[in-house]
Amino acid sequence: MKRFAIGIDLGGTNVKAALVERGEGATNQTHRATDAEKGPDHVIDVMVDLVQEMWSHAPEDDITGIGIGAPGNINWDRTTLSYPPNLHGWDSINLQDEMQKRLGALVPIIVENDANVAGLGSAHYGAGRPHDSFIMLTLGTGVGGAIIHNNKIFRGTTGSAGEIGHMSIDYEGPVDRSGVAGSIEAYLGQNHLSQHARERLLNDDTTILHQMAGPDLEYLTPKMLHDAAIRGDQSAIDILSWAGHKLGWVISSVVHLLDIRKFIVGGGVSAAGDYILGPARKAIQQSVMPGMRSDIEIIQETLGNQVGILGAAHLIFQYLDEH
Amino acid sequence: MKRFAIGIDLGGTNVKAALVERGEGATNQTHRATDAEKGPDHVIDVMVDLVQEMWSHAPEDDITGIGIGAPGNINWDRTTLSYPPNLHGWDSINLQDEMQKRLGALVPIIVENDANVAGLGSAHYGAGRPHDSFIMLTLGTGVGGAIIHNNKIFRGTTGSAGEIGHMSIDYEGPVDRSGVAGSIEAYLGQNHLSQHARERLLNDDTTILHQMAGPDLEYLTPKMLHDAAIRGDQSAIDILSWAGHKLGWVISSVVHLLDIRKFIVGGGVSAAGDYILGPARKAIQQSVMPGMRSDIEIIQETLGNQVGILGAAHLIFQYLDEH
Repeated sequence: MKRFAIGIDLGGTNVKAALVERGEGATNQTHRATDAEKGPDHVIDVMVDLVQEMWSHAPEDDITGIGIGAPGNINWDRTTLSYPPNLHGWDSINLQDEMQKRLGALVPIIVENDANVAGLGSAHYGAGRPHDSFIMLTLGTGVGGAIIHNNKIFRGTTGSAGEIGHMSIDYEGPVDRSGVAGSIEAYLGQNHLSQHARERLLNDDTTILHQMAGPDLEYLTPKMLHDAAIRGDQSAIDILSWAGHKLGWVISSVVHLLDIRKFIVGGGVSAAGDYILGPARKAIQQSVMPGMRSDIEIIQETLGNQVGILGAAHLIFQYLDEH
Repeated sequence: MKRFAIGIDLGGTNVKAALVERGEGATNQTHRATDAEKGPDHVIDVMVDLVQEMWSHAPEDDITGIGIGAPGNINWDRTTLSYPPNLHGWDSINLQDEMQKRLGALVPIIVENDANVAGLGSAHYGAGRPHDSFIMLTLGTGVGGAIIHNNKIFRGTTGSAGEIGHMSIDYEGPVDRSGVAGSIEAYLGQNHLSQHARERLLNDDTTILHQMAGPDLEYLTPKMLHDAAIRGDQSAIDILSWAGHKLGWVISSVVHLLDIRKFIVGGGVSAAGDYILGPARKAIQQSVMPGMRSDIEIIQETLGNQVGILGAAHLIFQYLDEH
């Protein structure tokens, strides 16, 4: 049969796993705390436990392989995860070897960047399905990106392509966690956006966010901006619009470079929907050269974080098609 | 034998043609004034004349086809050139049909954007030869770009990929000919760079450019900036450095998005060499995230405009390999 693969989403807080039926989606799911502070060996054991649990649900042991989406650098062979930002004490680990050893089986195992698997998941199960080529943008703590070209991940020269979060729209702008000025992450990354809102609203008496976000707005989050915007709070609407305008400018640069005109947006901050995407669309019409403006679309991902785990499993299906 | 193709470089001032031997280079070359004001029919006749002249030099009539590099929009099928900026009265013309009709032969004819053929020419005959994937940047009146991925032109969704000249590094920056703020063309395009230098130097008594560029610096060109820089003129050096810094920032965005780390720079303005490229390299080290900084190289194209005509011919060799 060979219709099933296991997808894993390795995050700093939780490890999620799913049994995925090709073209259909997840038939079983589970998750467990990552407990990253217990070190890499523990984290790998957790992944192996979850794999075995999912495997037990597969009809006739029909597992074609295991795909893993993870933050951090992935080598060209997609076996090794290096320096994942939220997993302490983790240098470079060949997850394929480590997991095959523990599982006692040479089942195919592929590791890929989390933004890339989100893109692949969207391409085959989510909002990206109607489009052969599109850009995935995940607006979360960081801003991740992936290039899906002809339904595959475009990986570049070393496997690091798609770092849209670090593309700059202002060489003298605010600086992101990687030290890049004016990168889109420095505007839309969750902490950057919250901090910007805090500074901008501190002396703004008209916003209801002072009632929502504690003294000095210290608990302010993008979700609160969205909630306040829904309630008609103009200050919140203005800040989300400011962020959307910045998003539009980076999308414009991507359109000019790649002539790919469909953008799927996911991740927590994207929940603000048209409060961000409307102004982004408006900025695009002003920042893309006339000959390339047509057919540009920004689309919200509807599957949420689910795209990551589905995309991870799909790494295996795609690998099998090609080998 | 099938070793020869004809390459054409259709420019606003001249039409150039060459007989190109695969993997070797041009064995014969010719050119004639475009006389664009006489209209498209005349321009096509000129191209056909030059083709026939080159054809007569081919051993045993061994011509595999005709490749044409041209400014303007090219359709996905690479037959039709629309709205070339420097050719008046030219809407949309199917050059394949028109030339086959006049030649009385169904020889393969492929039209491609001029920056893209420059990239292809560099990949197979020029400074791009050692690299499977690189970005071509042509710094001229406009700033053109091409993505060469695995030795082929990356064309995007409609054939317009590679418009690096219109990528923005400052959403509130100066505006280019297409209305895009802070695009790299608005800094490094020949006229933009000259105008910037004129404004900046008008009241600068220390520069020798006042002796070179006429009253109010009205004849100032990037070449004069280069000449003055060679003579140690600090004002000229500073302006080329300013331009190089901007170039570095757009290269940084391209690296983040594509993880392609080799850049071949050609076109008239690139003659300023390290006066521009040195500061660009320095900016890259400050604007690319640490994990992606290694192995980035900016390389000057050594073949000059020759890459365009060689790349045009190579369109045919590549087409034959694939069909």
